Amino acid sequence: MATIKDIANKLGIAVSTVSKGLNGASDISDEMRQLVLDTAVEMGYASKKMRSQGKRKVCILIENMDYENIDQFGYEIIVGFKLSAARRHWDVSVIPTNLNMQTQEKFDTYMLKNGYSGAFLLGFALHDDWVKQLHKTTVPTVLFDNYIDNNNHVGYVGTDSFEGINTAVTHLNDLGHTKIAFLNGSKNSMVSEQRYQAFVQSMESCGLTPHEELIEYGYYVPDCAKYHVPTFLKNGATAIICASDLIASGVISEVTKMGLRVPEDISVIGFDDLPIASQLNPPLTTVRQDRIDLGKSAFLLLDGLVHNVTISKMLLRAKFINRSSTAICSSTAISKKTAEKTIIDEV
Amino acid sequence: MATIKDIANKLGIAVSTVSKGLNGASDISDEMRQLVLDTAVEMGYASKKMRSQGKRKVCILIENMDYENIDQFGYEIIVGFKLSAARRHWDVSVIPTNLNMQTQEKFDTYMLKNGYSGAFLLGFALHDDWVKQLHKTTVPTVLFDNYIDNNNHVGYVGTDSFEGINTAVTHLNDLGHTKIAFLNGSKNSMVSEQRYQAFVQSMESCGLTPHEELIEYGYYVPDCAKYHVPTFLKNGATAIICASDLIASGVISEVTKMGLRVPEDISVIGFDDLPIASQLNPPLTTVRQDRIDLGKSAFLLLDGLVHNVTISKMLLRAKFINRSSTAICSSTAISKKTAEKTIIDEV
Repeated sequence: MATIKDIANKLGIAVSTVSKGLNGASDISDEMRQLVLDTAVEMGYASKKMRSQGKRKVCILIENMDYENIDQFGYEIIVGFKLSAARRHWDVSVIPTNLNMQTQEKFDTYMLKNGYSGAFLLGFALHDDWVKQLHKTTVPTVLFDNYIDNNNHVGYVGTDSFEGINTAVTHLNDLGHTKIAFLNGSKNSMVSEQRYQAFVQSMESCGLTPHEELIEYGYYVPDCAKYHVPTFLKNGATAIICASDLIASGVISEVTKMGLRVPEDISVIGFDDLPIASQLNPPLTTVRQDRIDLGKSAFLLLDGLVHNVTISKMLLRAKFINRSSTAICSSTAISKKTAEKTIIDEV
Repeated sequence: MATIKDIANKLGIAVSTVSKGLNGASDISDEMRQLVLDTAVEMGYASKKMRSQGKRKVCILIENMDYENIDQFGYEIIVGFKLSAARRHWDVSVIPTNLNMQTQEKFDTYMLKNGYSGAFLLGFALHDDWVKQLHKTTVPTVLFDNYIDNNNHVGYVGTDSFEGINTAVTHLNDLGHTKIAFLNGSKNSMVSEQRYQAFVQSMESCGLTPHEELIEYGYYVPDCAKYHVPTFLKNGATAIICASDLIASGVISEVTKMGLRVPEDISVIGFDDLPIASQLNPPLTTVRQDRIDLGKSAFLLLDGLVHNVTISKMLLRAKFINRSSTAICSSTAISKKTAEKTIIDEV
C-alpha cells in the first residue's frame, strides 16, 4: 500500500504538496493536483479514512436507469442498498453520471478524489469508459447485470436470468402454447445474451422449438413493441415473453391495436414486476426481480469486496407472478384471426 | 408465523405442554415431544431466540469432507465462516453428520430442536435425505457446491468452475498442448457437471477439440489416477487437468511409474491449491479455491437468507497458480515414448 511519502518521493515534491493535492486544497495548481491524484491512483494509494473499519463513504453511480420515483426500476434498488448500508453506518451518495463525466476523469481518480471506498454501478453498459476501466481498478466495485473477468475487486449482482425465463416458458408450455415469441432487451448486453440462452434452453427442455423468427431484440421502452409484434403474429406466435414490463405494456397495446385480445388470443408475460404491472389491463403476469433484495445484495457484495472476499457473482431468485395476461392456448382461433388480419394488412 | 398457542390449538393440548416439548423438558413423553416438534416444523414455528436480531446460533453440518487439520479441504472454510460469524457475535457449532443421523430425524426438526436459526452444509450430496428435504425447508440454509431450485430459504456458494477450468485450459493451450485430458471428480455431482461443461466450452473457445476418450470421472482421492492415466497416455494426451490436487498427486505418481516425466513429458494441473500442492514433486500448478473466502461468503449468504434476502447463488473467483508441473508441449517426444511404452505393455 503506497503512502503519501511514496507519492512525494516518486514525484520529487514535498509531502505537504501531495497532501494538498489529495485533500483538494486551493493553494496548488490544478495541474499539480491532477498529477498528484493520477500518481496516487497509479500507486494504489488509499487514504486512512477510505481504509478505516468504521464509517465508510461509498457511492451509487447511476446512468441510463430511471430511479427517482417509486414506479421506476432503480428506486427500490437504491432503497435496499441504503437500508443495508444504514445498519452498518455507511454513508451513501447517489450520483447520476453521464458519458461526459466519464471522459473527463478516470474512475479511480474520481473515487480517490471524493474519498469513496467503494461503488455500486447501476445502468452502465460494457462499452462505457468507466466500465472498461474496471478491468484494472483496485476500488471495490459492484456492477448490476454486468460482469468483469479476472479482477478480484469487481463483482456482479443480478437476478438469475435462467430461472426467470425458465418459469415463464414452463408456465406457457403448461398452458399449451408451442409457438412462443421472445422480445428481448437491447443487443450487446450481457443480461440480454443470458436471457436469450435461457429462452432457447428452456424451450428445448420443454420439448419446444425456439424459432429464430420469433426471437427479437428491442429496447426497454413500450415503443419497441410496434416493430416486432406484427411479425411475431404473422409467424404464428400465440404467446410473447418480454424482457421488461414496459416492453410488455407496449406489446399489449400493439396486440389490441391489431384487433386481438390479451390473454384470450395472445398471452403476454413481462419481466421485473414494476408497480405498473398490476395496473395494466389485463394485470400483467410477469417475473419479479426483487429490487429491494438486489440493493441489499449489492451491499452485501460490496461489503465482501471491501474486506477482500473475492466474490465475483451473486444471483437472486426470480419469482413468477401469475396475474391475468396469460391463458390457455387456443391456437386454431389465433391462426385464423391472424391470417385474416394479415390478408387485410396486405390488401 | 405460527405461535406456541397456534401449535397448542392445533394439537388440542395445553400451551405449557407445547412449551415443554419445544424446550426439551423431561416431564413429557418422547412421543408427545416428537409430535410437538413435528407440528411446530409443519406450521413454520421459530422461537423468539431463533428470530432475534442479536446473538444467533447457527451450525455447520459436515459429511464426506475432511476438515480436522489445516492440510484438509474443509478446515479453512470453517475458519473463514467462524471469522465472519465472530464479527457479528454469532455462535457457531460444527457438527459431523452421517446418513444415519439423517434418517433418524428430519432436517427442520433437528434445527428447531437445537435452536439453530441457520445452517451451512459442507460435503453433502444431492441424494442425501437432508438435501432432498431442502426443497421444502423454511430454515435459512447455505449449501457448498450444490443448488436447490425454487426455495428462497436455500442458497449455493462455490468457486466459479467455468473461470477455474478456463484458466487451466488457456494456460495449456498457450504452452502448445492440444490433446488435453480431464480427470473430473465423481459423477452425478453438480460441480463435476459444471466443470465438464466448462472443459468442453473452454477447449472449443481455444479452438481445440475435446476428445471424449480423454475425459473421465474419478473420485477425490489419489488412487483413482491409476484407472485412467494409462488410457489417457495411450490416447495421446500431453497434459492432464485434474478436479483436485489429491487426484493430481495420484496422476503425477502414475505418470512417473509409467516412465514419463512431469512436466517434461506430461503437464499436470490440479484444482483447490491445498497446502500439499506446493509440496509435491514437482510443485503443482493448480487452480486455487480460496477456502477462507468460501467460508466468509457462506456466512454473508446465510446472513442474507436470515434477513430474507433471496440470494440463490454466490460464486467466488478461481485463481490460477502457476508452479512447475506444466511445460511447453513436446508432443513428438511423448507420442514416441508412449508408443514404446504401450508396445512394451502389450508384449
